Amino acid sequence: MNGAQSLIRTLVDSGVDVCFANPGTSEMHFVAALDSVPEMRGVLALFEGVVTGAADGYGRMADKPAATLLHLGPGMVNGMANLHNARRARTPIVNVIGDHALTHKGFDAPLESDVDALNGWTHGWSRTSTDTAAVGKDAAEAVAAARAGQIANLVLPADVSWGDGGEPAGEVAPAAPATVDDARITGIAGVLGGSTVILLGKGATRERGLRAASRIAAATGTKVFAETFPARIERGAGLPAVDRLGYLAEQVQWQLTGVTNLVLVGAKAPVSFFAYPGKASELTPEGCAVHTLAEFGEDVADALDRLADAVAADTEPVLQAESRPALPTGDLTPQNWADVIGALLPEGAIISDEANTSGLLIPAATAGAPRHDVLTLTGGAIGQGLPVAVGAAIACPDRPVVCLQSDGSAMYTISALWTMARENLDVTTVLLNNRAYAILRVELTRVGAEGAGPKANSLLDLSTPDMDFVAIAQGMGVPATRARTAEELAEQFQRALAEPGPHLIEAMVPSLV
Amino acid sequence: MNGAQSLIRTLVDSGVDVCFANPGTSEMHFVAALDSVPEMRGVLALFEGVVTGAADGYGRMADKPAATLLHLGPGMVNGMANLHNARRARTPIVNVIGDHALTHKGFDAPLESDVDALNGWTHGWSRTSTDTAAVGKDAAEAVAAARAGQIANLVLPADVSWGDGGEPAGEVAPAAPATVDDARITGIAGVLGGSTVILLGKGATRERGLRAASRIAAATGTKVFAETFPARIERGAGLPAVDRLGYLAEQVQWQLTGVTNLVLVGAKAPVSFFAYPGKASELTPEGCAVHTLAEFGEDVADALDRLADAVAADTEPVLQAESRPALPTGDLTPQNWADVIGALLPEGAIISDEANTSGLLIPAATAGAPRHDVLTLTGGAIGQGLPVAVGAAIACPDRPVVCLQSDGSAMYTISALWTMARENLDVTTVLLNNRAYAILRVELTRVGAEGAGPKANSLLDLSTPDMDFVAIAQGMGVPATRARTAEELAEQFQRALAEPGPHLIEAMVPSLV
Repeated sequence: MNGAQSLIRTLVDSGVDVCFANPGTSEMHFVAALDSVPEMRGVLALFEGVVTGAADGYGRMADKPAATLLHLGPGMVNGMANLHNARRARTPIVNVIGDHALTHKGFDAPLESDVDALNGWTHGWSRTSTDTAAVGKDAAEAVAAARAGQIANLVLPADVSWGDGGEPAGEVAPAAPATVDDARITGIAGVLGGSTVILLGKGATRERGLRAASRIAAATGTKVFAETFPARIERGAGLPAVDRLGYLAEQVQWQLTGVTNLVLVGAKAPVSFFAYPGKASELTPEGCAVHTLAEFGEDVADALDRLADAVAADTEPVLQAESRPALPTGDLTPQNWADVIGALLPEGAIISDEANTSGLLIPAATAGAPRHDVLTLTGGAIGQGLPVAVGAAIACPDRPVVCLQSDGSAMYTISALWTMARENLDVTTVLLNNRAYAILRVELTRVGAEGAGPKANSLLDLSTPDMDFVAIAQGMGVPATRARTAEELAEQFQRALAEPGPHLIEAMVPSLV
Repeated sequence: MNGAQSLIRTLVDSGVDVCFANPGTSEMHFVAALDSVPEMRGVLALFEGVVTGAADGYGRMADKPAATLLHLGPGMVNGMANLHNARRARTPIVNVIGDHALTHKGFDAPLESDVDALNGWTHGWSRTSTDTAAVGKDAAEAVAAARAGQIANLVLPADVSWGDGGEPAGEVAPAAPATVDDARITGIAGVLGGSTVILLGKGATRERGLRAASRIAAATGTKVFAETFPARIERGAGLPAVDRLGYLAEQVQWQLTGVTNLVLVGAKAPVSFFAYPGKASELTPEGCAVHTLAEFGEDVADALDRLADAVAADTEPVLQAESRPALPTGDLTPQNWADVIGALLPEGAIISDEANTSGLLIPAATAGAPRHDVLTLTGGAIGQGLPVAVGAAIACPDRPVVCLQSDGSAMYTISALWTMARENLDVTTVLLNNRAYAILRVELTRVGAEGAGPKANSLLDLSTPDMDFVAIAQGMGVPATRARTAEELAEQFQRALAEPGPHLIEAMVPSLV
């Protein structure tokens, strides 16, 4: 058994049985070894940003890591923007980064680069396997590290991969989350009330955490928000509803007005997404005390349950009633397209949300839709939506995936459409074509940039030439249609949901700005 | 004047007047400042790999740097694969990397990342501007550093960009290349002859170097090769012809059989692109002495001229006669498509060559075509061809650009087509669709990977689903047609060349393997 075979066998035995891949020559033994381990599924993507974004979507929905296969440093850098998002999401991922043979590293061959520098940038766990016999053990430890909610980079030199003497290793138990002590629960219980906000972050925006937080809110009057960009939030009819903190600093300051105690649960104290001249970066109100109920890596849901039991023993959570917008009519607008989605969102949907400015009204329009999950742009590195939809669909083949995708962001990783077609994934992409980097039009004003004229505005414009996303999608094998009215969008959305496999609907929604 | 305005003014005054950009919020003051400096041209791309690849193509053809504008660490990583190629090409580039405001850096906002780690990976020159008054000086030094043939990364925090007190700086003279001393010339002159090879690298594959090398070869019997992947090689009728070293180690070993002296001119001693079990990485024959006439950074062309004057004072270079293949007929093949290009390549063309396996026969078919330049995949990070074509077309608006692009590689940076349409660039892309990562089929065999079966082969296959590059190109605003026969390709190629603006021809060329 060679190193690659022992690696794949170990991954499978550790519960990792999907590998998103964009291989090159140095990974050929890994590719060949896929046939020796039938349980491992290889999923080809045409660009590494799709590979890593798919692994992110998969990990968020499967609650376990996928593997990726990346080609040396240059392949890895192509995947790093979506690894940045995955790091912010605390998604477990095991990256297998093929590298030159150890015997070849010193010759500065054309593709040689400093992979260690890249490992540092992605944070998390990293190791270079230097011994074929240890590859299995390295892989098992990588999986355990990833399961703690981080990116694990396993660098696999080609000669370690092709060498004989590979030994599969058994699963390594991941570190259990630490239990929060009673004193912390009691202390936080003492600050709850009408001028306190609980901020739910990683591990706290799933059903268990939401129910506990809702009980606490109902019993004590404490307000509850979710962080601005949750990795995964469960919502809809039958679950407690929770608002997210806004994207703009002004929104957050308004949401936190008068708050004297802020309780963090798997979240960080809110900061502005960007800096603006003369405006604050920290958004916690002055004089507000900040408390931590549980950090990521601690047992967040358990801490919320215990806090709820302490202050709301007899209180039930407040659940969202089913309530959908009426199906709208007329030319598409930023409001009515959201209402179409809210009116028709199917039970159990997974929304990959990179609608950006076009999606401003989606949370309200879908609040009372049947229960669903939403995966958001955790790290701000655009080009996440389509790949995350790929991964979510592979993690949950029985659930409909709805990708709400803005035009500008789509173009960073557009080849994800091809993988959707190749794998026949049940993803309905609603591509919001507003012909602009609309968010930057907002920001250009907000940063107070003076003197902006035609050249500046041209760099925010996507209408010269207009993109035809129907043609682009069809060119990658995804059936596609265009909607200009709410009626067309509703009809096309229903049809896409009813048919298996991927579809794209280009929705011509005018820019908000 | 703010920092951004002083930066752009300094760039222009230092001769840098094109900026390839994919901006975000932290770059809004830079974007706004474009309107205050009319001489600076901003060129929008939809993905940072297009931005940096275009800067590479521009620098290779303009012999001076373009600027880029990249959005924080995640934007920078998206551009780094093509910066890797640019580093190998020794292309001058000035990257302006917008970063969070200095006052905002400590808050670990969602897009925060370690830009210094990325600076290390790209090598070259790097600096973070921390003082608005010094931005101009920093920029002038960045341009000077880039002009020495490297990547210069200038990190511009948002508050340094928007701060008042910017001071444009005058041009800083770049370091002049060192002159090679006479002793080295004399020493090399003593080893020339029939068992010696001169290997031409950076700075030596332009007309001046080629003419000198040809004179030396004619007078002494020395063989001359160009390195495998030149950044820019001038060739065609009226110039000395020179073969490139092969891509496969076996080819190089054959080319260097019996060679006892290897003379490097702006090149490194050849190493295998990848390692293979049981095969050598170093390709210089055993016992062959390696000499360096001039390194990159020394005056390579001057050294060649002086060596030619020393050994070939009365010898003229041997020039390639005009000679084109006949226009072929029949279904497209790996041979006949190359003959179509050779038969019809226009005078003064710039070829951006990422045809990979499909392009194996292009060098022979175009050897006697009218004089042209070829830009090759210097660093092996695929996704270079289309962006480099963008940059070359902007550097040389009066010359036809021909992009020979394989299908798999095209998909990494496919949105370059949109920038071609937006800027109405005279680029004719011949997209070789062989429906496979054909190079990896070759390599899977060469690395001796055993046990490869359907799963492995599936990861090298691009036919499920087939991509329709005509639709994809049209969706991005580029007129496109499909050719299945040599006659169709010839007709479409001639028509595309005759019309202004970009065109794409999808050539259905079967895979070599």
